[in-house]
Amino acid sequence: MSDLTHFNEDGNAHMVDVSDKAVTSRIATAEGWVKMTPETFDLITEGRAKKGDVIGVARLAGIMGAKKTPDLIPLCHPLPVTKVSVDLTQDPDLPGLRIKATVKTTGQTGVEMEALTAVSVTALTVYDMVKAVDKAMEIGGTRVILKDGGKSGRYEAE
Amino acid sequence: MSDLTHFNEDGNAHMVDVSDKAVTSRIATAEGWVKMTPETFDLITEGRAKKGDVIGVARLAGIMGAKKTPDLIPLCHPLPVTKVSVDLTQDPDLPGLRIKATVKTTGQTGVEMEALTAVSVTALTVYDMVKAVDKAMEIGGTRVILKDGGKSGRYEAE
Amino acid sequence: MSDLTHFNEDGNAHMVDVSDKAVTSRIATAEGWVKMTPETFDLITEGRAKKGDVIGVARLAGIMGAKKTPDLIPLCHPLPVTKVSVDLTQDPDLPGLRIKATVKTTGQTGVEMEALTAVSVTALTVYDMVKAVDKAMEIGGTRVILKDGGKSGRYEAE
Amino acid sequence: MSDLTHFNEDGNAHMVDVSDKAVTSRIATAEGWVKMTPETFDLITEGRAKKGDVIGVARLAGIMGAKKTPDLIPLCHPLPVTKVSVDLTQDPDLPGLRIKATVKTTGQTGVEMEALTAVSVTALTVYDMVKAVDKAMEIGGTRVILKDGGKSGRYEAE
Amino acid sequence: MSDLTHFNEDGNAHMVDVSDKAVTSRIATAEGWVKMTPETFDLITEGRAKKGDVIGVARLAGIMGAKKTPDLIPLCHPLPVTKVSVDLTQDPDLPGLRIKATVKTTGQTGVEMEALTAVSVTALTVYDMVKAVDKAMEIGGTRVILKDGGKSGRYEAE
Amino acid sequence: MSDLTHFNEDGNAHMVDVSDKAVTSRIATAEGWVKMTPETFDLITEGRAKKGDVIGVARLAGIMGAKKTPDLIPLCHPLPVTKVSVDLTQDPDLPGLRIKATVKTTGQTGVEMEALTAVSVTALTVYDMVKAVDKAMEIGGTRVILKDGGKSGRYEAE
Repeated sequence: MSDLTHFNEDGNAHMVDVSDKAVTSRIATAEGWVKMTPETFDLITEGRAKKGDVIGVARLAGIMGAKKTPDLIPLCHPLPVTKVSVDLTQDPDLPGLRIKATVKTTGQTGVEMEALTAVSVTALTVYDMVKAVDKAMEIGGTRVILKDGGKSGRYEAE
Repeated sequence: MSDLTHFNEDGNAHMVDVSDKAVTSRIATAEGWVKMTPETFDLITEGRAKKGDVIGVARLAGIMGAKKTPDLIPLCHPLPVTKVSVDLTQDPDLPGLRIKATVKTTGQTGVEMEALTAVSVTALTVYDMVKAVDKAMEIGGTRVILKDGGKSGRYEAE
Repeated sequence: MSDLTHFNEDGNAHMVDVSDKAVTSRIATAEGWVKMTPETFDLITEGRAKKGDVIGVARLAGIMGAKKTPDLIPLCHPLPVTKVSVDLTQDPDLPGLRIKATVKTTGQTGVEMEALTAVSVTALTVYDMVKAVDKAMEIGGTRVILKDGGKSGRYEAE
Repeated sequence: MSDLTHFNEDGNAHMVDVSDKAVTSRIATAEGWVKMTPETFDLITEGRAKKGDVIGVARLAGIMGAKKTPDLIPLCHPLPVTKVSVDLTQDPDLPGLRIKATVKTTGQTGVEMEALTAVSVTALTVYDMVKAVDKAMEIGGTRVILKDGGKSGRYEAE
Repeated sequence: MSDLTHFNEDGNAHMVDVSDKAVTSRIATAEGWVKMTPETFDLITEGRAKKGDVIGVARLAGIMGAKKTPDLIPLCHPLPVTKVSVDLTQDPDLPGLRIKATVKTTGQTGVEMEALTAVSVTALTVYDMVKAVDKAMEIGGTRVILKDGGKSGRYEAE
Repeated sequence: MSDLTHFNEDGNAHMVDVSDKAVTSRIATAEGWVKMTPETFDLITEGRAKKGDVIGVARLAGIMGAKKTPDLIPLCHPLPVTKVSVDLTQDPDLPGLRIKATVKTTGQTGVEMEALTAVSVTALTVYDMVKAVDKAMEIGGTRVILKDGGKSGRYEAE
């Protein structure tokens, strides 16, 4: 039967004991998007050179956000991440920006929360930088698409 | 014509000057959801009493997350928030949890980023607490539904 | 009847709305102590000049700790503190150090949590600096002795 | 002869060099309590279901507080904690809540400061949540009761 | 006679009481530079488009650094900054980058520490991004060039 | 040819992957200074006993600052530092204070940014504590003088 490992037998929240888990190379990738009007999309994408680098700022925020994960997620273990990359691609059909973040560590637990946090902070930063012209943007599609390196094996989203 | 206020005339990012804006009562509400399998939904919702309070932990994380907003969003002004509430409701049709966060301040700039951050951190925490049983959960529908109290007037999502 | 204001009518935690409270001058003082063996007490107190300034380091940690209060206490409002002082006095009868912290703000809610946090972090830092010679130290007597400036009036401990 | 290791030979504070200490499994447990009036005790304990989960919020704050230890204690080494649990038990004779925190790491130095910090932040959070009805609560009995796993061997409080 | 206001009459550090100071508009500007070899200078400046935007990353780090000032400087008051801008200009004669940061607040104390911190973090970030090719870079010339808005009047560096 | 490793082949910033680098003992030392008027220098240095310990406060700030490095420098890896020491010496010829910081870790990447950050925060704290009497102080000479322990070998400044 399935179990919520973040609670003990009495139903109390705890930070689960990973002391005996192996120190292994771990990787996770998450994705998400920010949807906007076509006008906003044009403004951001052409504006990269002329009016300010929304994508560059958001990418950096996402990378820094990954390092904040154990501060934000109560039961998350602090981990020395060894790599964080955040890619933003322009999707005129959305229209909007697609975000993908990959995080690696050499540690005792996985980094999918770091990857998801990187995506979320990147998306929030896009919203912040563009909200003066478009308050109706929506953030969605945030999910883990790859996780590998721990005892539970490789996970890939369908 | 619309303008990205977070960049100056040279296209360089800056924290926009709000020194001359009025100190007014401001409010913002944001929403989002976490979608999961029906089995996971049942586990969380019945489990609230028996197996651990996912919703209570996530709500608290969201409230604390709102206070972290200026740490996470590079060009966001630090603000003394005067109220944060986060509500999670069970939606068996999603199936999953719907999140709504409301933030207030008495200050010189709005709190929609704080509300969006609260929603995002709440959603990420739900994911974290349940990921041992369901890695395929998706976070979405994150958007501002109400903003009021500043010079730009009242905004309500359609 | 008494009420736990940090929960709403449904029993859910929230950061209580202080938007309509007056901005007034507020002050709070808290106290506490660290009890140790007579040998440890002698080592610290004579050691201030010769072996290292335990008291100076602990005082500074307490002052900085006061600024961390909204990061540590989930439902605490962020406040621009306008004064923090921490005094440590030697009590050979305890034996140990007595700590008193005073915090002021001009804001919409009180600063007793900031004062208590300053005392606690000061005490923890004393423990940290001395633990190599005395693991059995005890921290206690932590309480608010003065709170003034808000609607609920002046409180003084008996 | 005893030595305050947090100071060098000149009496200057430093973060002591642990580079050559073995990476071992380490554990520490600390305890403390919050004393209150019988009326407050009844309110909290019966209120857990009806009026809001003081204990659940305080436990979570304590777990998150453990992760903040190197931010709060100036000369404390940052450590990747591998487990944090915080238990609160009701003691009608105190009357009040007894707190016990256990922290583990696989690292080069001990985690007693993390355990003490978890206890302190838990206690402060109880105070915060209940202070509207009882300002005279006292926090005390904070001490290390178990430390094991390093070169200095096992320590148990008497 | 001159006085170190960050110490009380007993010579103990404290966060000075600003409760009775007026809430006024305050501004401060600080400057500094990073000196490098001519080859490194060429790499950075031509590389802005082709190889990566060192200047953009460093600017953003400086802006975020300004918000961290009360976390870094022990006796600094937390302040709601209302504007932060950081400019980097290329100086082929140095050769290197010149940094200027301006910070504003509406508050009870000045923001020269925020401006200096922004400059310092910007400079450190330039170092970090370029250190793989030039470890001998030097950071210097860090000073306040303008401070205005408080009781002590306008200060301009000669 | 030299390369800015903090950018990928597309010129986008990323936190470089150190997963495959060896875990080795690493050390770095950085230095810097704060220059002031002779009167300020006398005030600080004689004042250490009588008027307040500027040097002690600044040293502690620098040590804590080293731990904040990954929060401040966007692409810096979080690292469990195993030693931090900060020395301040009085130089009547400057006149001012000379600062030297040494940091060690057992990890996958170097600690020169931590050493530089410790020096910078120490210097900024000196400025903060003395600014009431001397706004014209200058911070400079900040550079790495030793780095050892990684694949790139030993670096010593000329």
